[in-house]
Amino acid sequence: MTLVVGIAGGSGSGKTTVARKVAERLTDVSVASVSMDAYYRNMTQLTLDERRQLNWDHPDAVDMQLLADQLEALTRGETIRKPVYDFVNHLRSSRTEAVASADVIVVDGILLFWDVRIREICDLKIFVDVEADIRLIRRIGRDMRVRGRQLKDILDQYMHTVRPMHEEFVEPSKQFADVIVPHGGYNEVAIGMIATRIQERVRSVIS
Amino acid sequence: MTLVVGIAGGSGSGKTTVARKVAERLTDVSVASVSMDAYYRNMTQLTLDERRQLNWDHPDAVDMQLLADQLEALTRGETIRKPVYDFVNHLRSSRTEAVASADVIVVDGILLFWDVRIREICDLKIFVDVEADIRLIRRIGRDMRVRGRQLKDILDQYMHTVRPMHEEFVEPSKQFADVIVPHGGYNEVAIGMIATRIQERVRSVIS
Repeated sequence: MTLVVGIAGGSGSGKTTVARKVAERLTDVSVASVSMDAYYRNMTQLTLDERRQLNWDHPDAVDMQLLADQLEALTRGETIRKPVYDFVNHLRSSRTEAVASADVIVVDGILLFWDVRIREICDLKIFVDVEADIRLIRRIGRDMRVRGRQLKDILDQYMHTVRPMHEEFVEPSKQFADVIVPHGGYNEVAIGMIATRIQERVRSVIS
Repeated sequence: MTLVVGIAGGSGSGKTTVARKVAERLTDVSVASVSMDAYYRNMTQLTLDERRQLNWDHPDAVDMQLLADQLEALTRGETIRKPVYDFVNHLRSSRTEAVASADVIVVDGILLFWDVRIREICDLKIFVDVEADIRLIRRIGRDMRVRGRQLKDILDQYMHTVRPMHEEFVEPSKQFADVIVPHGGYNEVAIGMIATRIQERVRSVIS
């Protein structure tokens, strides 16, 4: 039996850090990680320029059905072939990544709790809640450092899609969370609490 | 050694329910409960009418120093003489209540995290977060049923002190929480998580 832990929250809230730190604290359990970002739709019918202009922060940009199908497969003990997204060409790569099932499945993504099927699959729904300006600062840093993008482009995208989609979809989905974690990846008390709970649930299922 | 768990949140958020349900799930540990409401200042210099008009939702209405002193005494293993507040006469009763120290001290109150000393005493800071209209409905129900008050008085007080003090002091104190619990006393997942964490911390201290 597997335990599915969903970690949602706005862009730059520290979802990945929370997911990693929770996983690091678990002992004697296997953990599989899945990120919503791998499930962007494969828009082959559009040109690269058109794909760049798309609103990638809208729920329709993500193949939620495939994500839900693969999460369910993992809960049945199956190995999945996770898609790999190529952020340079803005297309799904022809390569896939095999992810084996595990005691704990950690899935993260901004729009996880927007989808009713994914909400129902998650045994534990965690929303990482960080103020918008702090998230923006982190996003600027990451996009300049990791993706080599210009500040103007980052801020344009933030104003045109990231921010309005956050207000319309991400923030309202907070209501479905079981627990809200303020301060993101640096909240060691909350991270410890989540890890303890997962450890205990897995232990009680195994024994 | 004791573990101090602070539970804050607005009036009507379900702090007491969360505190009770968490305590009910703990096994083989002793629990002591302390409520901020017992620590209202003893305003003997005012008439009953003047006391009724006071803003009881302001931090100055609470003897935070006595509360912090007594929490610290409990963490040192001492028994405290907790004040008893008489809500009919709006005065501190001449009676006190002996509270013995325990493995876990659960303290609840709307303004707990506003006070820096109390924040530092709490090992685990939980904020119960419920929408304002739901909290208002619960408050109306409780004040009519338990305290036999008229709707007009309840709503007047709500508009004049409860709501503005919530905006000014309670809501901003949420930033100091380790974990935010949405949906209040009915959030069994969050309650289970908090209880598991406390149980584990106490177990690791004892063993």
